[in-house]
Amino acid sequence: MTLWNGAGRRIYMQEVGTRDGLQAETAFVPTEDKVALVDALSRSGLAKIEVTAFVSPKAIPALSDADAVLRGIERRPGVVYSALVPNVRGAERAIEAGADELNLVMSASETHNLSNLRMTRSQSFNALSDVAAIARQAAVPVNISLSCTFGCPMEGDVAADTVMDWCSAFAGDLGARGVTLCDTTGMAYPTQVAALSKAFRERWPGTELTLHFHNTRGLGMANVLAAIDAGADRFDASLGGIGGCPYAPGASGNVCTEEIVHGLELMGYDTGVDLGGLIDASRRLPALIGHDIPSQIVKAGRRLDLHRPPADFEAIRERAHSR
Amino acid sequence: MTLWNGAGRRIYMQEVGTRDGLQAETAFVPTEDKVALVDALSRSGLAKIEVTAFVSPKAIPALSDADAVLRGIERRPGVVYSALVPNVRGAERAIEAGADELNLVMSASETHNLSNLRMTRSQSFNALSDVAAIARQAAVPVNISLSCTFGCPMEGDVAADTVMDWCSAFAGDLGARGVTLCDTTGMAYPTQVAALSKAFRERWPGTELTLHFHNTRGLGMANVLAAIDAGADRFDASLGGIGGCPYAPGASGNVCTEEIVHGLELMGYDTGVDLGGLIDASRRLPALIGHDIPSQIVKAGRRLDLHRPPADFEAIRERAHSR
Repeated sequence: MTLWNGAGRRIYMQEVGTRDGLQAETAFVPTEDKVALVDALSRSGLAKIEVTAFVSPKAIPALSDADAVLRGIERRPGVVYSALVPNVRGAERAIEAGADELNLVMSASETHNLSNLRMTRSQSFNALSDVAAIARQAAVPVNISLSCTFGCPMEGDVAADTVMDWCSAFAGDLGARGVTLCDTTGMAYPTQVAALSKAFRERWPGTELTLHFHNTRGLGMANVLAAIDAGADRFDASLGGIGGCPYAPGASGNVCTEEIVHGLELMGYDTGVDLGGLIDASRRLPALIGHDIPSQIVKAGRRLDLHRPPADFEAIRERAHSR
Repeated sequence: MTLWNGAGRRIYMQEVGTRDGLQAETAFVPTEDKVALVDALSRSGLAKIEVTAFVSPKAIPALSDADAVLRGIERRPGVVYSALVPNVRGAERAIEAGADELNLVMSASETHNLSNLRMTRSQSFNALSDVAAIARQAAVPVNISLSCTFGCPMEGDVAADTVMDWCSAFAGDLGARGVTLCDTTGMAYPTQVAALSKAFRERWPGTELTLHFHNTRGLGMANVLAAIDAGADRFDASLGGIGGCPYAPGASGNVCTEEIVHGLELMGYDTGVDLGGLIDASRRLPALIGHDIPSQIVKAGRRLDLHRPPADFEAIRERAHSR
């Protein structure tokens, strides 16, 4: 087994398109279509699906049907159905609707946390602690997503020590089941990814580590490989590559689930995912969200989806052979 | 030095946008603009530039000014100015116009070679041998680009032995200075890239090895890294990522020069390229070719091109701190 030959090593793919992707869309995808999409994703063999977010319907109208979606989906054994929650109220709603896991968010960058969440980081951490207490009472595990782990679009580099300190607070004090290191605006690069992933895995071997990359600067797949090389085995990705970046209009957002699965399976990793089913689900997206999707696999097909020779191929061959 | 820490290892970047990119465009870029573009690329520190192709102006009108472009550019010491030539007539024109190197092409796939070049592979090889003889007389080195090295869109997988046999004919019998393994339609994946690159480097340590990847299925950067890990140090790439794939409308074509340089430099490799100059050159492309370009770096900026906090940031902070 080397990095280039996965030799069946298990990689867990976690879908965030139905939350991170759809929340960025102006179109409201009807509840029954969201449910059908999640059900299709469940059948494709993904390890975890971030189904929706229990946020204010005013703040994010696209996900105002969070309760109905989470209650409406079919539960497939083995799949973890998680929901993003910003506060205690959201956590209560998510737990009531049957979320398997709550995903809480704060930023490693003070400027980004203030800009995005209107709280200091320590205020956010206190709020997360309240949510974690609610979750503990309900015996629902929590995952903490740390934004701007690999850099802040306003501050620039974020010190690795800062990241590790927050991870320590999550994995230790808060008792989180998992931590997600988020490359919120596509600033991660493989050197840094390998170092942080390795440090995390060594220090908290019992905590789930997820890497959440954006392909904003074309480094998504390379970062996934750097993390795998450092011992990580869980990745967020978004069906069709939907979900943009407010700082880079037109650039890619989340890494694309079917691109990552296609690449990793070719390299011998076991993602447990039926790629055909995933591609079929992705093909539905343009009709749902009203525009083209970044997915290169939907455009180009799989590596061995072959094409016919030109119509006059036999004539060309005969002419060539008669020379 | 590890794969993730280049530690100053030299990587040679070879620009193909002015040939592989522009030939796919319907717009005719005026000769003086082509010359100015090549001059800007020269100044950015690229190791080699495939300036143009000496092909039939009827077949590829976009490059009908090959002579004028190659004669018009400023020659920067250390940069190799190459030209693609399909036959003896093209080679004579390219040599006369002062090409430093001739790039000859055939395919590892019989079906692709017949479809594209209307010859069998052995007929193509014989034609290449005639061109190589002309070049040898003129003391101009040749590079052979082998299309479909990593798979044929019509035949599927191409056996590694087939690839190695052709490489042997090029590096041995033909005395080529270099061989380019071309992923013509984006079928390469890292496992295969690492194996072929390693086999080539071991067998022909004195022959220049170039890898030419297309990002059609999102694996471009990962393939570059797999090749580097196997000892390769030369890569073709296209400014702005221009140059599509006829089999995958809308999907990416050649890997994007500024994306590869941006990624490799972050990882500590030395490409010798001034990224700022490269990005400036890329920003000119949309006006020249009349449409948007795939480059994520032009859209998103470099990793540390920072953004201002929101206009009301101070008010947000004060409110937060007063809680």
